[in-house]
Amino acid sequence: MGLNVYLSGEIHTDWREQIIDGAQGLDITFNSPVTDHDASDDCGVAILGEEPNKYWHDHKGAMVNAIRTRKGIADADVVVVRFGEKYKQWNAAFDAGYAAALGKSLIVLHGPDHQHALKEVDAAALAVAEQPSQVVVVLRYVLTGKLPG
Amino acid sequence: MGLNVYLSGEIHTDWREQIIDGAQGLDITFNSPVTDHDASDDCGVAILGEEPNKYWHDHKGAMVNAIRTRKGIADADVVVVRFGEKYKQWNAAFDAGYAAALGKSLIVLHGPDHQHALKEVDAAALAVAEQPSQVVVVLRYVLTGKLPG
Amino acid sequence: MGLNVYLSGEIHTDWREQIIDGAQGLDITFNSPVTDHDASDDCGVAILGEEPNKYWHDHKGAMVNAIRTRKGIADADVVVVRFGEKYKQWNAAFDAGYAAALGKSLIVLHGPDHQHALKEVDAAALAVAEQPSQVVVVLRYVLTGKLPG
Amino acid sequence: MGLNVYLSGEIHTDWREQIIDGAQGLDITFNSPVTDHDASDDCGVAILGEEPNKYWHDHKGAMVNAIRTRKGIADADVVVVRFGEKYKQWNAAFDAGYAAALGKSLIVLHGPDHQHALKEVDAAALAVAEQPSQVVVVLRYVLTGKLPG
Amino acid sequence: MGLNVYLSGEIHTDWREQIIDGAQGLDITFNSPVTDHDASDDCGVAILGEEPNKYWHDHKGAMVNAIRTRKGIADADVVVVRFGEKYKQWNAAFDAGYAAALGKSLIVLHGPDHQHALKEVDAAALAVAEQPSQVVVVLRYVLTGKLPG
Amino acid sequence: MGLNVYLSGEIHTDWREQIIDGAQGLDITFNSPVTDHDASDDCGVAILGEEPNKYWHDHKGAMVNAIRTRKGIADADVVVVRFGEKYKQWNAAFDAGYAAALGKSLIVLHGPDHQHALKEVDAAALAVAEQPSQVVVVLRYVLTGKLPG
Amino acid sequence: MGLNVYLSGEIHTDWREQIIDGAQGLDITFNSPVTDHDASDDCGVAILGEEPNKYWHDHKGAMVNAIRTRKGIADADVVVVRFGEKYKQWNAAFDAGYAAALGKSLIVLHGPDHQHALKEVDAAALAVAEQPSQVVVVLRYVLTGKLPG
Amino acid sequence: MGLNVYLSGEIHTDWREQIIDGAQGLDITFNSPVTDHDASDDCGVAILGEEPNKYWHDHKGAMVNAIRTRKGIADADVVVVRFGEKYKQWNAAFDAGYAAALGKSLIVLHGPDHQHALKEVDAAALAVAEQPSQVVVVLRYVLTGKLPG
Repeated sequence: MGLNVYLSGEIHTDWREQIIDGAQGLDITFNSPVTDHDASDDCGVAILGEEPNKYWHDHKGAMVNAIRTRKGIADADVVVVRFGEKYKQWNAAFDAGYAAALGKSLIVLHGPDHQHALKEVDAAALAVAEQPSQVVVVLRYVLTGKLPG
Repeated sequence: MGLNVYLSGEIHTDWREQIIDGAQGLDITFNSPVTDHDASDDCGVAILGEEPNKYWHDHKGAMVNAIRTRKGIADADVVVVRFGEKYKQWNAAFDAGYAAALGKSLIVLHGPDHQHALKEVDAAALAVAEQPSQVVVVLRYVLTGKLPG
Repeated sequence: MGLNVYLSGEIHTDWREQIIDGAQGLDITFNSPVTDHDASDDCGVAILGEEPNKYWHDHKGAMVNAIRTRKGIADADVVVVRFGEKYKQWNAAFDAGYAAALGKSLIVLHGPDHQHALKEVDAAALAVAEQPSQVVVVLRYVLTGKLPG
Repeated sequence: MGLNVYLSGEIHTDWREQIIDGAQGLDITFNSPVTDHDASDDCGVAILGEEPNKYWHDHKGAMVNAIRTRKGIADADVVVVRFGEKYKQWNAAFDAGYAAALGKSLIVLHGPDHQHALKEVDAAALAVAEQPSQVVVVLRYVLTGKLPG
Repeated sequence: MGLNVYLSGEIHTDWREQIIDGAQGLDITFNSPVTDHDASDDCGVAILGEEPNKYWHDHKGAMVNAIRTRKGIADADVVVVRFGEKYKQWNAAFDAGYAAALGKSLIVLHGPDHQHALKEVDAAALAVAEQPSQVVVVLRYVLTGKLPG
Repeated sequence: MGLNVYLSGEIHTDWREQIIDGAQGLDITFNSPVTDHDASDDCGVAILGEEPNKYWHDHKGAMVNAIRTRKGIADADVVVVRFGEKYKQWNAAFDAGYAAALGKSLIVLHGPDHQHALKEVDAAALAVAEQPSQVVVVLRYVLTGKLPG
Repeated sequence: MGLNVYLSGEIHTDWREQIIDGAQGLDITFNSPVTDHDASDDCGVAILGEEPNKYWHDHKGAMVNAIRTRKGIADADVVVVRFGEKYKQWNAAFDAGYAAALGKSLIVLHGPDHQHALKEVDAAALAVAEQPSQVVVVLRYVLTGKLPG
Repeated sequence: MGLNVYLSGEIHTDWREQIIDGAQGLDITFNSPVTDHDASDDCGVAILGEEPNKYWHDHKGAMVNAIRTRKGIADADVVVVRFGEKYKQWNAAFDAGYAAALGKSLIVLHGPDHQHALKEVDAAALAVAEQPSQVVVVLRYVLTGKLPG
């Protein structure tokens, strides 16, 4: 058994690298959204033409990014969604809902202060973790049946 | 043609009433989550037994509420998701993602200051409105083909 | 057995009225797109705000109309798509492809000079007719097993 | 992440070659309909027997071509549909509708003068481009997260 | 609980009437193909135009009949397929396979001498009966939980 | 909003009646398997012919009962599965798995001593109750948003 | 593009070998049912235990064979169903219906004297051939776009 | 043709090893749940944090194990479910129901004394065996068409 894992959500810390590094040696394919903030914001107009209106500027970019996001989630066995300390991160919650409706196994990663606000998202998850290292251990256990220690 | 419309999201203003009142006379069935904040938070433990740990308190309630939410979205032709000025509202974005993955027609309702933060959610929508009255006009047009004025 | 029939395509002649009138007395629910050309073109900006760019003007309208079109096709047992003599009518062919992918029974209605250009669309159909009256007879036969004369 | 891309529509210019050449080095599998116009028109009768009636001649060919087209779209993550300057091209719009109903990511490629006629097709797309080179840049960005320049 | 039952297969005896009569008083909606043999054979050309070639004559009729058959099976909870003593009855076996793939509850009705030839069809069924009266008793039991006597 | 609720599992106590009685006045349609133990065991051979081998005797009955069970679960929004104190009750756990795979909202009803043995079943549920009266309160809350007291 | 092709139906002539030989060099994976008649008939009882009743003897074998048949059809892009001159061949028609309901591309192979009896099966097909060599040419054309000569 | 086989159920005997050993040389990928009883019970709290309440201790573990179980069943062509002599084994019956609803080919493995209690589970199966060696022979026959001896 191998796993395809999509890493959604917060892009301002190195949690993706921590998980990917920690999971070395396991049969896992990782995918992620584009995490270059400027490229992600501007891809639509940079490729398909400028928009004077900021709404359509954002819209064109969000649509292009959706090609990658939908493919990433559709291919995934497990979707990990990380909620950071800042920003609205509605796209993370949207991805979680999207993944849940498709029946993907959902792992949610967030600090304890977000527990109440994320209770509906957590309720759709098979694991709720606080640290990227816990996600690594979950993935290793799922693939090998081994617990640390 | 009749419509089944699910009204998801913000529960602190009367936007649902405005839409339901405005749509009187149209062949629309409206459904909503439980909007009594205390009941929604406490339903799990009130019915199925107390939990000393706040996380499981929240969890039990979120699970019971999911029975209603899933049914409401599954039955809907159109899902309207309202984002208010305050709070994280991750459950609203989760519902939007869930509805999008099921192929529901999505209408997003929010003020102009949330445009950038909601660009991925808006990109999955067939209409983005700022006022509940606009949602009413969209629904009337969809059912009757008539525009105001 | 009753039928839900969606009438897609050309909006410049009275073919829908001919079919609906001819089918009186049969247990059929008919749905159609908005056939008021101006309302259909302008609904997006009229409800959700003006757009100086004609592309986004059209886009907003097409999205709002899609709420009705998707519902109409999703509910249908039979989708009738009419191609007239003029215009590109790409939305008609799009609806035909959309309906075919959903497994709907497709009836295509067009004159003999379009046979070659529509061969891929016709190949997805269960009936290809030239006259609205033939569609009526097909629907009556499907419901009652009776042929005329 | 790799992509499977189906290139549907106009067969009279070299837009497919431009995209495939431009995308060299990317992990993309391209598929297309048969673009030999005569073979595509005559395959049915050439293999399965002559038909004196032109309608059935066309029909037999369209059915055989559908084996390839359906497989191409079913396997695709992204469907690019090109509308050229001439002809009805209803098969292109049909493919776009078919792909949209299956939830494929749709990229539409056409000149600015077709914007109004294609508004319903564009409304189902995640990107609308005028040049094959833009499609290449979209695909490169989706796979690598890199924008040119 | 009510049931929608589609009665497929042999059209030369009164087995459908026996089942419908026997099931009076039960909450069952019955549907069937067109059982007028001539109308069924000729509906295509009678409505959509003559065909000199017998193959296309048959084809046009089979396509029109498929509108009714697909609807009947799609709506059904239970599909009863009757194999008589004569003829190839490949359409009956085709309907059985079609219904099985859609997950419909299948009841097969045939005499004992067809057991070996129908073993693959029977293997997909939830009940195999020899007499229409047994089908009635199965349906009554399913709806009421009551056995005769 | 109304609900369709399937009551699966233990047939030796009056828990179904308690739930149905307690839910009077709510817009709920209840369905159940046949709860007459002898009829359920013998329906296959009673209708379709005796079997000397007990395995096939049981098999024929289980198949006929599956017509009702599948319909009941397929139509349900909520599946309640009750595990009693005695017997293996593998059919109850089978129904729970079947309902979970179809995405039905699952409510599991059992005493505290079965918690460990049912942990995988409970993990697929949105509510785990010990008393039929709790199920009634869950259903009332889901439909009305009201908690007792 | 490669193809997965399932070869269903008649097992008394070498039509499968003709197709597989003719298709050498093409990127096609072929699957078939077990074509050893005795093994196919007896596999159930040979492995899982004798049955004195011929019906259950047949039934057990048909069920074991269904493991292979279902897998073969589920994996297929194209299902070729061959009807020979003799026998009822209801399993072939059942496979055709099963494949059609799953949206597989269907090629039917039979002599001209079966045209009327197979009209419903042919109506679900994308190609109807009389000779195995024609099936080879269809498959070659679908994969390469080349016609012979 | 290769097969993906999931081995569900009883974890106290070496039946999985018997099947995997016996199937050497066949093109089969086997998957299983975690069969280390302690790891399976404690994985949730070991990775995601202790729970003083045994119910939530079990729940967290069951959720983490579900990531593996769901993937294993989703990927499988064939699900073998073994019921041993002891324990409730409700998770085995749950897996059988889950697999049946997904349309997987089900093989049930149990001793003769469980026939009556497992009649609903057996009724959903394509093969019912008493010995692991019989499962091996079924799998070999499905892949090669060869019977022993």
